[in-house]
Amino acid sequence: MTIAEFQRQIEEIYFARDKARGMSGTFQWFVEEVGELAQALRGADKERLSSEFADVLAWLSTLASLVGVELEAAAVDKYASGCPKCGRTPCSCQGAKP
Amino acid sequence: MTIAEFQRQIEEIYFARDKARGMSGTFQWFVEEVGELAQALRGADKERLSSEFADVLAWLSTLASLVGVELEAAAVDKYASGCPKCGRTPCSCQGAKP
Repeated sequence: MTIAEFQRQIEEIYFARDKARGMSGTFQWFVEEVGELAQALRGADKERLSSEFADVLAWLSTLASLVGVELEAAAVDKYASGCPKCGRTPCSCQGAKP
Repeated sequence: MTIAEFQRQIEEIYFARDKARGMSGTFQWFVEEVGELAQALRGADKERLSSEFADVLAWLSTLASLVGVELEAAAVDKYASGCPKCGRTPCSCQGAKP
């Protein structure tokens, strides 16, 4: 499934409600899901972990839709040619992201 | 670009460093990017917004790689058939996600 197809799928399921709620309220839900992912990452339940990753991706996607960002285009623009800072794959930035 | 292709791309650029840093340190970076996205969402700079969405997706992806989760499989499993709670598209859950 492409990133764009996933974004469309989440729009079809949730966009009407998410739009009615608005960006700030939706961001709050997104962060709540990030918290659930943090909890899952401390455990060993692989199924729960997978589910929480899916949720964070879904809420990130719907946030992008709310502000008119195409997640796939954003991802390709920034990362398709390697590290956006050093331009290399693998990244060879010095001292970055310790 | 599929979700899986993006995850592979991020692995090729960053996995060695991310693995050396470990999951908790990488989660901290992920949350820092979520903070930058929050800031960008309060502004009107569309290019910055797009860049921050890409970053959050990249860090989410690398986190998934670190714990052996396939982001695309997780997304498809949970959302390909509509809302995972009510099973419908659009979601018709009552009272959910206000």
